[in-house]
Amino acid sequence: MNGLVDARLIKLSQHVDADSDGLLVVTEAGEHVPFHQIQRMFTIVAPAGAKRGRHAHRLCSQFMLCVSGAVDVVCDDGRERTTFSLDHPGLALFVPPGLWLEIDARQNESVLIVLCDRLYEEHDYIRNYAEFLSFRKAPRA
Amino acid sequence: MNGLVDARLIKLSQHVDADSDGLLVVTEAGEHVPFHQIQRMFTIVAPAGAKRGRHAHRLCSQFMLCVSGAVDVVCDDGRERTTFSLDHPGLALFVPPGLWLEIDARQNESVLIVLCDRLYEEHDYIRNYAEFLSFRKAPRA
Repeated sequence: MNGLVDARLIKLSQHVDADSDGLLVVTEAGEHVPFHQIQRMFTIVAPAGAKRGRHAHRLCSQFMLCVSGAVDVVCDDGRERTTFSLDHPGLALFVPPGLWLEIDARQNESVLIVLCDRLYEEHDYIRNYAEFLSFRKAPRA
Repeated sequence: MNGLVDARLIKLSQHVDADSDGLLVVTEAGEHVPFHQIQRMFTIVAPAGAKRGRHAHRLCSQFMLCVSGAVDVVCDDGRERTTFSLDHPGLALFVPPGLWLEIDARQNESVLIVLCDRLYEEHDYIRNYAEFLSFRKAPRA
């Protein structure tokens, strides 16, 4: 089972246009994104103080980047928690399955992009923290 | 070869949180995204007035959404042009290969997300408009 040590920050390729035409950030499956299949993307646009997440995935890996504003992502393995600050478009966070996640928006109009290696499957979500703790403690085959 | 009629707007699933915790927009490969393999994602954060794009792809399909601010996307098949306004997070634009693209940011801090069905390949880009016109006119096998 994945632990906190398996969640990690990844630097992305950034290209600032010489004509001030903005910032380009690039991510490729199997390159910056640790998984080879990007099956789903979701985007959260959140006001400062918004709290999202509060669930774990049994199987789904996630790759997160905050391209505007700033968010804190709390990863929890049932014993410890680590907070990753995504406050720059050039920084991404890989979150393997099996960790409880909480997302706190730090600025208004914060834009979080999440790439996933699986399509939406409701049974992949653990939305209750007590259930998550049981899931972490259960013996694995 | 794809024409302007093959570029099309697609409505996305939006979920507004009852607790005002922001807006969630979801896209899945093979569902809203017309291609099954998302190989690459890039994000542009641009100031008002910024102009991006100005190239065509020989093979790469693109799926674009603007989750903050607003951008106009001009699609050109060498004979005609159509402008698509992406001014809402719930609206995406599918752009098949073979069309010349120009992107104009309409608001500051406009955030455009582009999903691609191919990894970066420099030889897939046509960056010169005269060359693009020749490409459009060339007989196909």
